[in-house]
Amino acid sequence: MNGAQTLAQTLVNCDVEVCFANPGTSEMHLVGALDSNPRLRGVLCLFEGVAAGAADGYGRIAGKPAATLLHLGPGLANSLANLHNARRAATPIVNVVGDHATDHVRYDAPLTADVIGIARPVSAWVRRSRNAASVAGDAARAVQAACAAPGGVATLIVPADCAWSPAERAAERLPEIAPAVVPADAVESVARLLANGKRSAILMRGPALIGDALEAAGRVQAKTGARLLCDTFAPHTQLGAGRVVVERLPYFAEQIVALLSGVEQLVLVGAEAPVSFFAYPGKPGYCAPEGCEIVYLAHADEDGAKATIDLADALGAPDKPSTRASLELPGLPTGALDVSAVVRTIAHLTPDDAIVVDEGLTASQALQAALARARPHDHLPLTGGAIGGGLPMTVGAAVAAPGRKVVCAQADGSGAYTMQALWTMARERLDATVVVFANRSYAILNIEAKRVGTSLGVKGRALLDLHDPELNWTRIAAGLGVEASRATTAEEFADQYQSAMNGRGPRLIEAMI
Amino acid sequence: MNGAQTLAQTLVNCDVEVCFANPGTSEMHLVGALDSNPRLRGVLCLFEGVAAGAADGYGRIAGKPAATLLHLGPGLANSLANLHNARRAATPIVNVVGDHATDHVRYDAPLTADVIGIARPVSAWVRRSRNAASVAGDAARAVQAACAAPGGVATLIVPADCAWSPAERAAERLPEIAPAVVPADAVESVARLLANGKRSAILMRGPALIGDALEAAGRVQAKTGARLLCDTFAPHTQLGAGRVVVERLPYFAEQIVALLSGVEQLVLVGAEAPVSFFAYPGKPGYCAPEGCEIVYLAHADEDGAKATIDLADALGAPDKPSTRASLELPGLPTGALDVSAVVRTIAHLTPDDAIVVDEGLTASQALQAALARARPHDHLPLTGGAIGGGLPMTVGAAVAAPGRKVVCAQADGSGAYTMQALWTMARERLDATVVVFANRSYAILNIEAKRVGTSLGVKGRALLDLHDPELNWTRIAAGLGVEASRATTAEEFADQYQSAMNGRGPRLIEAMI
Repeated sequence: MNGAQTLAQTLVNCDVEVCFANPGTSEMHLVGALDSNPRLRGVLCLFEGVAAGAADGYGRIAGKPAATLLHLGPGLANSLANLHNARRAATPIVNVVGDHATDHVRYDAPLTADVIGIARPVSAWVRRSRNAASVAGDAARAVQAACAAPGGVATLIVPADCAWSPAERAAERLPEIAPAVVPADAVESVARLLANGKRSAILMRGPALIGDALEAAGRVQAKTGARLLCDTFAPHTQLGAGRVVVERLPYFAEQIVALLSGVEQLVLVGAEAPVSFFAYPGKPGYCAPEGCEIVYLAHADEDGAKATIDLADALGAPDKPSTRASLELPGLPTGALDVSAVVRTIAHLTPDDAIVVDEGLTASQALQAALARARPHDHLPLTGGAIGGGLPMTVGAAVAAPGRKVVCAQADGSGAYTMQALWTMARERLDATVVVFANRSYAILNIEAKRVGTSLGVKGRALLDLHDPELNWTRIAAGLGVEASRATTAEEFADQYQSAMNGRGPRLIEAMI
Repeated sequence: MNGAQTLAQTLVNCDVEVCFANPGTSEMHLVGALDSNPRLRGVLCLFEGVAAGAADGYGRIAGKPAATLLHLGPGLANSLANLHNARRAATPIVNVVGDHATDHVRYDAPLTADVIGIARPVSAWVRRSRNAASVAGDAARAVQAACAAPGGVATLIVPADCAWSPAERAAERLPEIAPAVVPADAVESVARLLANGKRSAILMRGPALIGDALEAAGRVQAKTGARLLCDTFAPHTQLGAGRVVVERLPYFAEQIVALLSGVEQLVLVGAEAPVSFFAYPGKPGYCAPEGCEIVYLAHADEDGAKATIDLADALGAPDKPSTRASLELPGLPTGALDVSAVVRTIAHLTPDDAIVVDEGLTASQALQAALARARPHDHLPLTGGAIGGGLPMTVGAAVAAPGRKVVCAQADGSGAYTMQALWTMARERLDATVVVFANRSYAILNIEAKRVGTSLGVKGRALLDLHDPELNWTRIAAGLGVEASRATTAEEFADQYQSAMNGRGPRLIEAMI
């Protein structure tokens, strides 16, 4: 075996099944190792930002890491924005970066760069292998580090000689680093707080929003009347009919302030006290009501899911939540196509158990409202504000869940950052439907410019406009191998979306809103 | 005035005329300042990697910096790979990055990142403005730092409050930091060396390859018989009929070794001793002949152009070079279209004084050979090995030289990294012709895999293949607003290329090789 082969086999031993790859010369032995290991699936991406975003989407749905395979410092650099999103989502990712052979670094050849320096701002863990014999152990540690609560990007840098030189054997999986358990007295103290008669809300993020923990949150609500909230960009939520209803914090600060008005105590589960996404001149960044008591039930790296279940038990809450979302599908719209018509159609027609990747930006609030009482689904938003996450996450979610329909609600300006993801959807025959909200502008910036107090003239407004030339998503998708169509009326959109839901494989619908 | 307006006016005072921009909310006041300053041209890019690569192409041709405008840490991250290329090219760039308002950073809102940490690996200079009053002085210093020899990326981070708060006035241009002059005795010592009768070569990079300095190199050759060489990835060279002929080091180590065989002394002007681009198992990375004496005439941050002229004078060289490239246009090929037919057609038809951006990869060597005796032109290659530089550099070169035809020789796999650049070519009506070498593969990696000693099976080879689905550049270009056509025979290619040379404005030809 060589170092590369021990790396591949170690990843398999650690239950890593997929590698989103964009390799180069220094990774050829790693490609060879992928080639010879039948249990590791290599998924080629045309750009490293796609690989990183795909690993993010995969990790959020699979609950375990995918690997990446990137080409030296510049390849890593291209992945950084979507690794930033993954960092904010606390997604486990084993980020494998090839590098020059150890002896070659001294020559400062053109591709030489400060790989560790580039990795650090997005990585929870960084290591460069020292020799071929250490690669397997490093890989096992990388998986362990990626999975340590709350999850993160573990970057393993593999010099080419560490990949090509002989190595003895693969490593076995290291023990899981379990999240810290919230002590019983801390849980009981929150239980007493929630029984004190004040107006309470519980703000959640992370595993507390999934499965049994979400059910437990509903039980707590049934017992105490506390409002259930989640972070604006909670990385993974389960929504729709039958699920416990959680109010999502809106995007703009004043909307958050309005939503939280009257809340006297705010319990945090894996979340932080709400703040404004951006700063605005003369406006506060902190959004909790003045005087509202902030209490942590669980920090992000503690076991918030167990703490929520323990809280329900400590309160003597009923076995089941008292309220759940009912199924209330909006009627199919007709006539002109606008954001409202698109999101109502999506809500009406999306099947059970779909995954909705949401980079709708100005369309997201309407989409979330329409989907709240639609069929049950999983929701993956952009978490770190680095636009260009939607299409790549769609790739990763579809690879993680081959039996489920993945719907991507994609703003057009943001989608342009990583349009190359469409090619991988076609290549892997992923069952993904991309809806492009084609308003031909950075619409959010027209809103934000007013909010920060800038009035733009012709030249400034032109810098936010995508009409000249028109970004034609139907042609772009066709150029990247994805079947695409354009909808200009509500009826056309419904026809095309219904057809996409009935079929399998990648589709793109350009909704002319 | 606010801080943003003082920044814009300071850039204008420092002779910065263009800003390649992809702004967000935190940069709205900077957009407003662009808007109100008629002497600063904002060029919108759909992806930050395009903005950075455009600034690189602009700086190489204009010989002065453009500004960028990027959105916080993730926007900077997206620009990093092409800033790596710019760092390797020593291109002056004023890299302006917006950030959260100073008081907002404490909240760790989703877009918060270690902006300085992300900037450092590619930047010669990094500063974060402390308040609105300091922005103008910081901007003047950024221009000075970007232009200090040999040139580099100066990253100025502007928190949103520093942009929107009141500021007094713009700053004037700071004095140029001139490159260190090589002392006369050092020049004379090299002159003596070249007169000692040994077989000598002069390896150049940077300003020594341009204009009068190139002429002086030709005079040195006329006097001493020394061979003139340039680095494989010399950032900017002037080639073609009438120019002093400089041999370019080839890409692969063994080719460099063969080319340098017999050289007993190697004089370096702004270059380093040649090394292999990648490491290969059991092969040396250092490529100069054993025992060859290495002498620096000028380091990269010294004035290599003046040193070369001084050397010619110290030698008492003739006033003019004795040999120049003659005009020898290859015949127009007919029949099947292959790399040879494409490059011969380009050499035959490209007009005087064109700029050739070269990211042809496996086609580059043939292209350079064909162009060596074509009409005079400027040549800009990929310098740092971070693929995806070609299309963005084409944008920047065309903005810098509106009266000249820009031809981009673009490998298809590499072009896919930054295809969004086509949109800016259309938007700005740039006179650029992109020739895509459509071989539907990462062809270079099929060669490299053999060279590093890996034999790939079906799965591994598939990771280097772009046939499934076919990357259709004609459709992609149309989707991004650029007129495009496909050529499958030499005659079709010649027709389409001739038409592109006769016309103005952006064109893409997909050469099916």
